[in-house]
Amino acid sequence: MHRYRSHTCGELRASDVGTDVRLSGWLHNRRDLGGILFIDLRDHYGITQLVARPGTPAAEVLDKLTKETVVRVDGKVVSRGAENVNPDLATGEIEIEAAEVEVLGAAQQIPFTINTDDGVNEERRLEYRFLDLRRERMHRNIMLRSAVIAAIRQKMVALGFNEMATPILTATSPEGARDFVVPSRLNPGKFYALPQAPQQFKQLLMISGFDRYFQIAPCFRDEDARADRSPGEFYQLDVEMSFVEQEDVFQPIEKLMTELFEEFGGGRPVTSPFPRIPFREAMLKYGSDKPDLRAKLELVDVTDVFEGSEFKAFAGKHVRALAVPDTGDQPRKFFDAMGDFAVEQGAKGLAWVRVGEGNALTGPIAKFLTEDNVKALVERLGLEPGHAIFFGAGDFDEVSKIMGAVRVEAAKRAGHFEEGVFRFCWIVDFPMYEKDEETGKIDFSHNPFSMPQGGMKDLEEKDPLDILAWQYDIVCNGVELSSGAIRNHEPEIMLKAFEIAGYDRDTVEQEFAGMLRAFRFGAPPHGGIAPGVDRIVMLLADEPNIRETIAFPLNGNAQDLMMGAPTELDESRLKELHIALRKPAETKVVEGRPVTEAVHPDAAR
Amino acid sequence: MHRYRSHTCGELRASDVGTDVRLSGWLHNRRDLGGILFIDLRDHYGITQLVARPGTPAAEVLDKLTKETVVRVDGKVVSRGAENVNPDLATGEIEIEAAEVEVLGAAQQIPFTINTDDGVNEERRLEYRFLDLRRERMHRNIMLRSAVIAAIRQKMVALGFNEMATPILTATSPEGARDFVVPSRLNPGKFYALPQAPQQFKQLLMISGFDRYFQIAPCFRDEDARADRSPGEFYQLDVEMSFVEQEDVFQPIEKLMTELFEEFGGGRPVTSPFPRIPFREAMLKYGSDKPDLRAKLELVDVTDVFEGSEFKAFAGKHVRALAVPDTGDQPRKFFDAMGDFAVEQGAKGLAWVRVGEGNALTGPIAKFLTEDNVKALVERLGLEPGHAIFFGAGDFDEVSKIMGAVRVEAAKRAGHFEEGVFRFCWIVDFPMYEKDEETGKIDFSHNPFSMPQGGMKDLEEKDPLDILAWQYDIVCNGVELSSGAIRNHEPEIMLKAFEIAGYDRDTVEQEFAGMLRAFRFGAPPHGGIAPGVDRIVMLLADEPNIRETIAFPLNGNAQDLMMGAPTELDESRLKELHIALRKPAETKVVEGRPVTEAVHPDAAR
Repeated sequence: MHRYRSHTCGELRASDVGTDVRLSGWLHNRRDLGGILFIDLRDHYGITQLVARPGTPAAEVLDKLTKETVVRVDGKVVSRGAENVNPDLATGEIEIEAAEVEVLGAAQQIPFTINTDDGVNEERRLEYRFLDLRRERMHRNIMLRSAVIAAIRQKMVALGFNEMATPILTATSPEGARDFVVPSRLNPGKFYALPQAPQQFKQLLMISGFDRYFQIAPCFRDEDARADRSPGEFYQLDVEMSFVEQEDVFQPIEKLMTELFEEFGGGRPVTSPFPRIPFREAMLKYGSDKPDLRAKLELVDVTDVFEGSEFKAFAGKHVRALAVPDTGDQPRKFFDAMGDFAVEQGAKGLAWVRVGEGNALTGPIAKFLTEDNVKALVERLGLEPGHAIFFGAGDFDEVSKIMGAVRVEAAKRAGHFEEGVFRFCWIVDFPMYEKDEETGKIDFSHNPFSMPQGGMKDLEEKDPLDILAWQYDIVCNGVELSSGAIRNHEPEIMLKAFEIAGYDRDTVEQEFAGMLRAFRFGAPPHGGIAPGVDRIVMLLADEPNIRETIAFPLNGNAQDLMMGAPTELDESRLKELHIALRKPAETKVVEGRPVTEAVHPDAAR
Repeated sequence: MHRYRSHTCGELRASDVGTDVRLSGWLHNRRDLGGILFIDLRDHYGITQLVARPGTPAAEVLDKLTKETVVRVDGKVVSRGAENVNPDLATGEIEIEAAEVEVLGAAQQIPFTINTDDGVNEERRLEYRFLDLRRERMHRNIMLRSAVIAAIRQKMVALGFNEMATPILTATSPEGARDFVVPSRLNPGKFYALPQAPQQFKQLLMISGFDRYFQIAPCFRDEDARADRSPGEFYQLDVEMSFVEQEDVFQPIEKLMTELFEEFGGGRPVTSPFPRIPFREAMLKYGSDKPDLRAKLELVDVTDVFEGSEFKAFAGKHVRALAVPDTGDQPRKFFDAMGDFAVEQGAKGLAWVRVGEGNALTGPIAKFLTEDNVKALVERLGLEPGHAIFFGAGDFDEVSKIMGAVRVEAAKRAGHFEEGVFRFCWIVDFPMYEKDEETGKIDFSHNPFSMPQGGMKDLEEKDPLDILAWQYDIVCNGVELSSGAIRNHEPEIMLKAFEIAGYDRDTVEQEFAGMLRAFRFGAPPHGGIAPGVDRIVMLLADEPNIRETIAFPLNGNAQDLMMGAPTELDESRLKELHIALRKPAETKVVEGRPVTEAVHPDAAR
């Protein structure tokens, strides 16, 4: 028999009754029923119940052990009898009559419970992460993450993509967030940067002639923590393809996401196909470029209805309306609560009316609406008795933000929110440029490296604010999983695009010298996307905090409490790396004036 | 039709003749045969020949383009005719009558050729890596690497392992090589370390109850470059398993390696099963714990044969003999050349004899061998006429090293070296301790964290130098792919093992506090291994330099010549990270005495 086990703790069934077996695992739980010990033995694969009769050598050992001790147990599989079967356990039909027990790994008193959730705080959980990960929820989350990533890889390979690792010690990039940096021992005074994303490398792989690249890529940003963002490192499914247009990127990603969410989403239905929503339409209908399409309501632009209105709150403003069916009979406090919600979002208040029989409108602002207004609204919003209408008025962006939030909240409160589904969409046709309202200056609205729709011709001929980019987002349930773009691979078009945004040729040539050089040696048209792996796992695991889906995350202060990272370095090591510490700024009096200056410990020696 | 291609450049066959097609790719080569242009169009998938007749619009465009321009070509598939078929090309039966050509990506004059190997130096290749990677050999190597790693992942999952990512921003570890470090913005004066290997994390995953872990793990060591070691980062197949003994680790890894090398080794046969060779036996027979078993010769310890000999060169020394069949008739210069080789390895010379008819020995040292010596050698070495024998004498380690090298070299020169095979083995039973010859002190010979064979009992009862460890290496064709071990997971046994090597309890408790703490909350017996991915790919690709198997490697000075890493950092960024640069030491005259001191640029301002 194997030194440690003949079976795992998740393996034995009624058909094994009578077999002599050997199990190893953790002492999960112990109950003493009239001297008979019932032990739950746990391993990675499941739980098996052990029974130890009083006076047996096994009972003598098992009686004294602390929870979470690791033991090997030899015994015979016996039937539990119909009345004692545990249907919640795969091994619930049997138990093991324990004959011999060996302690393989002793356990001290554990600082929090493994077999129930005792609400211990997160800092403590992270300090003892090796215990926290034994808990069922964390164990399941980490296994889900592992299975999801393995499935992504297999599906991407099946879709004709090749995974390639790009460098982790690389060059700092001029844009984006803060880099983490690594001092070079061999190159004094110089630093590597950890990649914020392998953007340049994946484009270089296309220029190198590889056709369909992907990577589960570790990315690093020196940013502060958020619920959906780990400080330090995160992973993205980095993808790039050559000789493609936008739809060629959508096809494999949509197939991947559909299969992935169907396979790991616990039966929740997945939209298919994903709607393509132009950015402008998304802003109008959902007030957001990250629409949560589980909310089954849409905003309607009714600005023109009130254009010459005498109702001062709406006249001359951008006005958006939200019709909510089956809500006209809600009590006043429903509407007040929605008003409070809108105020929390930054609104001054929330106008609303009820639609009654014969489309008679009632409610606080009903009296300001003319017959023509009502007629137009009925037509535009498809009003029927029982509807309620919420209104937002102001400038476009402000109204979009507030009414976008009101849309989702009203849907939730009024029963128009679909739970237990994954509602995907593509947001397309992002504008290439936007105007700074204060300075009037034209600037890139999103990614300057995306190919403008219409190429050089549109850049030369169109009003910049009308130029769209081959840029897109993929959104699920209101969560942006990724941006992506068809890249601008033609140096002349890139220089022109920057010129429109006010950058002269020399500056662009200098700033992006590396990429421009590569583009000039035969670059294929290419594009890609990079969905966040952590966000995908969070959605599938239904976890609101990213740390619940990562085995060993840093805490909110970017510390690893278990390993004690980050740590101080020896002076000799600092010297070898050609750096010195700065002490916090100190106040020092020089000739009567207080001077704040940085002090270097090494200079002071 | 698709905007860029209806087919790839590797796809069209005789059955496609007559079809209108669209291809995109790089202008690989162009020949002008009496005004007719023959163009090789290349993409990731292959090469297709285009034909452009003189005077056609296609010919006009194609005639002017530089090599490596990216074009789209529309045309009709035509048969090449039997006499023009190119059997080396998958598309060799057809060509495309080019009708229309569009330039998708212009190319400047390229700095070295893509379609032939022009022997350009490596620095230049790395500077233009995006061109270098278009060359067939590099493209094939990178694709092989990608396919090998994908296969490893699929096979490991099929073997019941789960891939889990461990942190890249983590704590510095006390042992091993130099860490790369990352200054923390949020934790002034403190540094993360990049992992040299996820050793502690994978053990913590076992303690967390995950049963079979693997990871294609990025690892970082701040070491100087070697042919088989990239400066900076490298990848290992990191593996750990719970409730296992040594053979349980061997089984899946042996299966994986066998399948992998059979699948990707180009038909080269793979040893099966892998022999298990005890360390001591490996040193005796092969003079190395990394034996190249393609050399079909074995060393034999003949120390006792010469124990009381009057031959001073051998008497009282450790003597190892190597019998080489079919070599007795080699000319004198063969033996002289072997002697020169031995001297290059550090030997003073190389003793040898020829075995003639009736086992009569001839050669320089024949006269020093007694009849008894000869009899013993004949028996021990299984001598036959035509054998040659080489001898090494000295201390054990020195003789092992030299005669180990002589063994492989003699096998190659005398036709006893098997080419075109993968000869694997496991080296087992490494000694736990060794004695420092100078101080007489007992110290760990390899990994202090391996479980000693015989556990606490052997530690307490045996001579330390006789204690073996559950530690092993996997070796292929003389290349060590990995060490591995069953870990010492019991704190008391670990403290005892360190005590024997002269470390007191308090020191060990303090130095390894984190791991000891984790071991005290219920640790399972566990063990693992971590074969180097780069070395596996090098063996499969038959490349002697690791950089030929990595898309974007650092050069020997740890620089990325294409991206310009590492780079200098802005003073503001250094400040934010709480560090300052040290300038190289400068000489400065203070009160008439030259003083060498470090100068901080910030302090000087």
